Amino acid sequence: MTVSVTTNESKVDVLIVGAGPAGLMLATQLSKLKIDTRIVDKMAHPVLRGHADGLQCRTGEVFEALNVHREFDAETHECAEVIIWDPDQNGGIHETSRVVDTVPGMSRVRHVNLGQDRVEAIFIDAMKKANNLEVERLTSPTSFTVDETALDDNDAFPITVTLKKLPPPAEWANGDVKSGMYRSNLFTDESQTASNAVEADHSGEETVHCKYLVGCDGARSWVRKNLGLELKGDSANVYWGAFDAVVDSDLPTTRMKNVIHSKDAGTVLMVPREDGMVRVYTQMGELKPGERVDRAAVTIEKLMEKTQQVLKPYRIDFPYIDWYTCYEIGQRVCDTFSQYKDHILIAGDACHTHSPKAGQGMNVSMMDTFNLGWKLASVLRGQAKRDILHTYQLERQKTAHQLIEFDRKFSALFTGKAKTAERAGVSPEEMRKAWDDSIRFTSGTGVVYEPNMIVGKANPWLAKNITVGSHFENHQVVGAFNAHALQLQGRLLADGRWRIVIFPGDIRNKDNFAALKALGDALGSKSGPAPKYTPKGEDLDSVIQTLTVFATPHREVQYAAPTLPSILQPTKKPHGIKDFDCFMCDEPSYHSGEGKAYAGYGIDPAVGCVVVVRPDQHVSGVFAMDEAKEISDFFDSFMIAPSPKS
Amino acid sequence: MTVSVTTNESKVDVLIVGAGPAGLMLATQLSKLKIDTRIVDKMAHPVLRGHADGLQCRTGEVFEALNVHREFDAETHECAEVIIWDPDQNGGIHETSRVVDTVPGMSRVRHVNLGQDRVEAIFIDAMKKANNLEVERLTSPTSFTVDETALDDNDAFPITVTLKKLPPPAEWANGDVKSGMYRSNLFTDESQTASNAVEADHSGEETVHCKYLVGCDGARSWVRKNLGLELKGDSANVYWGAFDAVVDSDLPTTRMKNVIHSKDAGTVLMVPREDGMVRVYTQMGELKPGERVDRAAVTIEKLMEKTQQVLKPYRIDFPYIDWYTCYEIGQRVCDTFSQYKDHILIAGDACHTHSPKAGQGMNVSMMDTFNLGWKLASVLRGQAKRDILHTYQLERQKTAHQLIEFDRKFSALFTGKAKTAERAGVSPEEMRKAWDDSIRFTSGTGVVYEPNMIVGKANPWLAKNITVGSHFENHQVVGAFNAHALQLQGRLLADGRWRIVIFPGDIRNKDNFAALKALGDALGSKSGPAPKYTPKGEDLDSVIQTLTVFATPHREVQYAAPTLPSILQPTKKPHGIKDFDCFMCDEPSYHSGEGKAYAGYGIDPAVGCVVVVRPDQHVSGVFAMDEAKEISDFFDSFMIAPSPKS
Ligand SMILES: Cc1cc2nc3c(=O)[nH]c(=O)nc-3n(C[C@H](O)[C@H](O)[C@H](O)COP(=O)(O)OP(=O)(O)OC[C@H]3O[C@@H](n4cnc5c(N)ncnc54)[C@H](O)[C@@H]3O)c2cc1C
Ligand SMILES: Cc1cc2nc3c(=O)[nH]c(=O)nc-3n(C[C@H](O)[C@H](O)[C@H](O)COP(=O)(O)OP(=O)(O)OC[C@H]3O[C@@H](n4cnc5c(N)ncnc54)[C@H](O)[C@@H]3O)c2cc1C
Repeated sequence: MTVSVTTNESKVDVLIVGAGPAGLMLATQLSKLKIDTRIVDKMAHPVLRGHADGLQCRTGEVFEALNVHREFDAETHECAEVIIWDPDQNGGIHETSRVVDTVPGMSRVRHVNLGQDRVEAIFIDAMKKANNLEVERLTSPTSFTVDETALDDNDAFPITVTLKKLPPPAEWANGDVKSGMYRSNLFTDESQTASNAVEADHSGEETVHCKYLVGCDGARSWVRKNLGLELKGDSANVYWGAFDAVVDSDLPTTRMKNVIHSKDAGTVLMVPREDGMVRVYTQMGELKPGERVDRAAVTIEKLMEKTQQVLKPYRIDFPYIDWYTCYEIGQRVCDTFSQYKDHILIAGDACHTHSPKAGQGMNVSMMDTFNLGWKLASVLRGQAKRDILHTYQLERQKTAHQLIEFDRKFSALFTGKAKTAERAGVSPEEMRKAWDDSIRFTSGTGVVYEPNMIVGKANPWLAKNITVGSHFENHQVVGAFNAHALQLQGRLLADGRWRIVIFPGDIRNKDNFAALKALGDALGSKSGPAPKYTPKGEDLDSVIQTLTVFATPHREVQYAAPTLPSILQPTKKPHGIKDFDCFMCDEPSYHSGEGKAYAGYGIDPAVGCVVVVRPDQHVSGVFAMDEAKEISDFFDSFMIAPSPKS
Repeated sequence: MTVSVTTNESKVDVLIVGAGPAGLMLATQLSKLKIDTRIVDKMAHPVLRGHADGLQCRTGEVFEALNVHREFDAETHECAEVIIWDPDQNGGIHETSRVVDTVPGMSRVRHVNLGQDRVEAIFIDAMKKANNLEVERLTSPTSFTVDETALDDNDAFPITVTLKKLPPPAEWANGDVKSGMYRSNLFTDESQTASNAVEADHSGEETVHCKYLVGCDGARSWVRKNLGLELKGDSANVYWGAFDAVVDSDLPTTRMKNVIHSKDAGTVLMVPREDGMVRVYTQMGELKPGERVDRAAVTIEKLMEKTQQVLKPYRIDFPYIDWYTCYEIGQRVCDTFSQYKDHILIAGDACHTHSPKAGQGMNVSMMDTFNLGWKLASVLRGQAKRDILHTYQLERQKTAHQLIEFDRKFSALFTGKAKTAERAGVSPEEMRKAWDDSIRFTSGTGVVYEPNMIVGKANPWLAKNITVGSHFENHQVVGAFNAHALQLQGRLLADGRWRIVIFPGDIRNKDNFAALKALGDALGSKSGPAPKYTPKGEDLDSVIQTLTVFATPHREVQYAAPTLPSILQPTKKPHGIKDFDCFMCDEPSYHSGEGKAYAGYGIDPAVGCVVVVRPDQHVSGVFAMDEAKEISDFFDSFMIAPSPKS
């Protein structure tokens, strides 16, 4: 008698564990770039309501770059002002100050709220549309092995992961989906992972060989633990309650963001959202190392009662509760985000955790994998050396440390008692200052990557206001051929392409015209980066796109265009027509005012400059108009030319 | 032996014949207002490509009011500039001037292009979503009768229409859907209507009893003809070619709108659109009364050749043709738009035709039924006297006459030869002036209805810049409770509600506060219009909504709100929470500048005023703050109070 053994084995370039915001952002980017990808999640459903809901400015910019913003533009809720309340003389509270929520001018996109359920759904739609990629649910890894001899071989699949199909959710103690405890991190949900629960049972298993394994599996990350890594930081945790409810109150500012600091009842943060609802955060208590939350302490009744106490003498009732949760948080970071020569990576809550007050969790997690996605794609496509992957760890770990540092300070202000006439404590001024500072920091627009192989040195005299390593900021320009007001940053789509953004000044001046012509001729020559790194038969802008922003009125650019080197305005498939979208002008628009881009970037139109921008909109370097060779050298340092056969 | 006869008989409140832009606009509005409606069209498909594609500013405002704009915002193509070309010295053409396409400040919405196929599809989706209404295709009326004794009985169905199911399109000589000749009006498509083709055959017939019959059945309207009416006007017709193509040309301005006036080859109008395409209009010839177009004259080759001749010495090729058509047009208007005491009405091309050059056809047709829809709904709901229906004819016929008048002049300039050194003709200055004038006229924002039972007298001293009878223009305001920048006009949704927009001035002044309180008390009393005309159990703003625009900073309004009469901020279903969206402030916003609404409307904040606005955003009247009684009287003149039983 013979036993037939079905070996369930397969290969995939990238295996993502965890389909929260971090995993879905990565999956969406990789599907748009047509990278062979799988994504698994142990849970039966995505988040259904509640959870994180703040989308910071920089996140909004990235959503636009990924072209997923239209879906949610209609749904987001924006909060214009933050009202800070402090104890008054009579044991009640009174408004002590108001601050704008998104500091004007910080970003062209504003800070908004949108439930994590909708954010996840938008990604799930986008990745399905882009490359038919879907989340494989009720699936969890049980083990992995690494072939350390194959880590430098680009064609090898050095990571082998065993995946297991989990029993349907009814059989789990999985929290109640509706109560909001579903996917809460209050409970040791290790019991829900196949690895612990059903170790001995090998049915429903599959062996997957992959080039890269990315753990986006949240604060209790299985991938992190199985790499032998841990989150380091504060040992004491606080636990927070959060709920979404329709609010009936005589507080005059329920449709604003309210930070309410009571004398003795603690602090409440209220954020207005869609359908007349408000998200309420209340800090519930502190936990000693090893201590677990008492489940009985986190009923919705407790959360409401706590809120009512803080708001006194104002009345607040909740005619409708949509969702509530409670979760514990400490400020912690993992020592490393990458192992096995960057073949196994972790991202999001798996490598850093912090409080919800500044609305960072979902944002920083998505920004981690936004940083990683295009790098993985460039390497897998054979366009870039594998070394660029290590910049993920370099760039994102520093950001995580800054965040944790900030959150520690900011949380202390929240937790600290309010200053009153009788006692010391957090004063309205301190609170206000912390909020002001936090708004700038938490927008995500402050992230600057330090010099590394894809972040070059700065030439601050060429573009005073462009910070190398930071994202390319927006200034409005005008389309040269259609005279439309355009947001320049919005043209830098996250489609995997690099960009050479040329600021030639006013080409009606002979010198500027000559400099642009010389630069164009050099960039367009055989050894120029776009011709060198573009596969045969593809449009010349498909790997590196050239954009030119003239300090010349659009009418003159229209008539001058035929005299400029063709690399600047390449012809495009399928009709062989010149691209009309790559020439822009710094001039007033008809309907949307004047962008003053040269002034905004600090570029002297008499001198001009060239800005090289990465696929994630971060600036790699600023070059002089006559530095075509230096630009080529930069790309040569990490890019790989297509083999002549292909 | 007995023969069983199936009588196929039914009733419906409104029967619409024709599902072009006019019919679909009406059907969408009626479904949103939950009016019992059917809409039939003889064609098997909606427009599939091409046809009209200009959406004027006012049309865009109306799409926003109907909340169908999000769908197409992403798809429209905007053209910023118009380039006018005239003959040069060498027998070629040269650019003589540039004009902005949408005059800044004319509307908050800009003139854009979107194919009629997409416009129709958006309506078809919206009416399905709103009330599950679908177009019944391959269906045409064959006859109707009118019970003239029942015309004044609101419960009667005085119009009886016989509808016939037509054979599937394969059996027709229906033009080729792909060639663009589908649904062209070049051919006598009477052969396609059941009435002519299959008169003797009564199979597939249905008898429909309706209260109102609306003919939106295009230039060759069956309804119009069967009312014994005809379009009157010019007897000579011109016929035009139009096509959509990708353009490969050395004309430097192909991504702008170009009006190209050649010396002898005629005039071409080119409008850029999506996917690198351009809509090209060329006038092909003139027809004498009774003469028919020679079909051989309208090949796409002829259209391209004609265009190439006009553009010389510039080269133009068409690597891809998406659609082409040819159609004949004269400036004609029908004597009346309404018969049988407004029980049978006609709208759109059925009652006026004109040239395509100013892009009016689709727009004016939709504006006809936008005017009609809410009136039908108010009467059918028993909220308004039947007399208001007659204002449709009064208001829209005048507009049609103005349009035809304008088009006649404008067309002559297009058709006329260009002036050159050797001969008289249309000069660049004349052309330019005509274009300037046309832009203002054709935006649709110039339409003013004359005084009638729902357009009262003006009080220009109260609001210098508000024209009674015109649409309520936009100025930006700030939400009192959320500090968001809001477009005031955008708050006047086309949801069938009337609006009382109060401008009380600055309520920090005692007098202004007192005046607002007195007005609110009067409007909120039993005999106030909202309490009087709102059915029991419904929200107090469901028939007449009150909006208040303060000249007071939002913070102060928040704290003053509880002291104001509750009619100004009514509680809403389902949670009984106060409406936070009906209070606005005239103040600078954080991110979008300052609206200066009081100044924009010409209202003195010390005096204030009250503006009554119809459900179609047209201004019915401007009243003083102490004219609560006059406001009530106005509503009493045409509204009907709900019967106490209901
Ligand atoms: C209950 C709760 C409420 C929250 N509320 C707020 C809030 O109100 N405001 C706020 O700013 N932030 C909130 N957060 C934080 C925010 O949701 C996170 O910071 C953010 O979701 C992090 O994204 P992530 O993708 O890194 O991780 P997660 O969103 O945690 O996603 C991890 C995913 O991995 C899956 N997974 C885990 N282990 C495995 C495994 N072994 N195999 C397969 N799949 C696995 C999980 O099922 C999950 O889908 C909340 C978090 C939780 C848990
Ligand atoms: C071929 C063509 C090309 C055009 N191109 C342009 C252009 O390039 N630019 C521009 O600005 N304008 C153009 N127009 C004009 C523009 O399309 C019209 O002004 C606009 O569509 C008018 O809308 P409407 O709803 O009043 O009539 P229509 O759009 O004509 O709709 C009438 C509807 O009624 C239906 N119908 C007719 N008779 C019956 C019947 N007996 N029973 C049932 N249904 C019936 C028809 O099938 C049709 O669906 C074009 C028109 C045509 C015909």
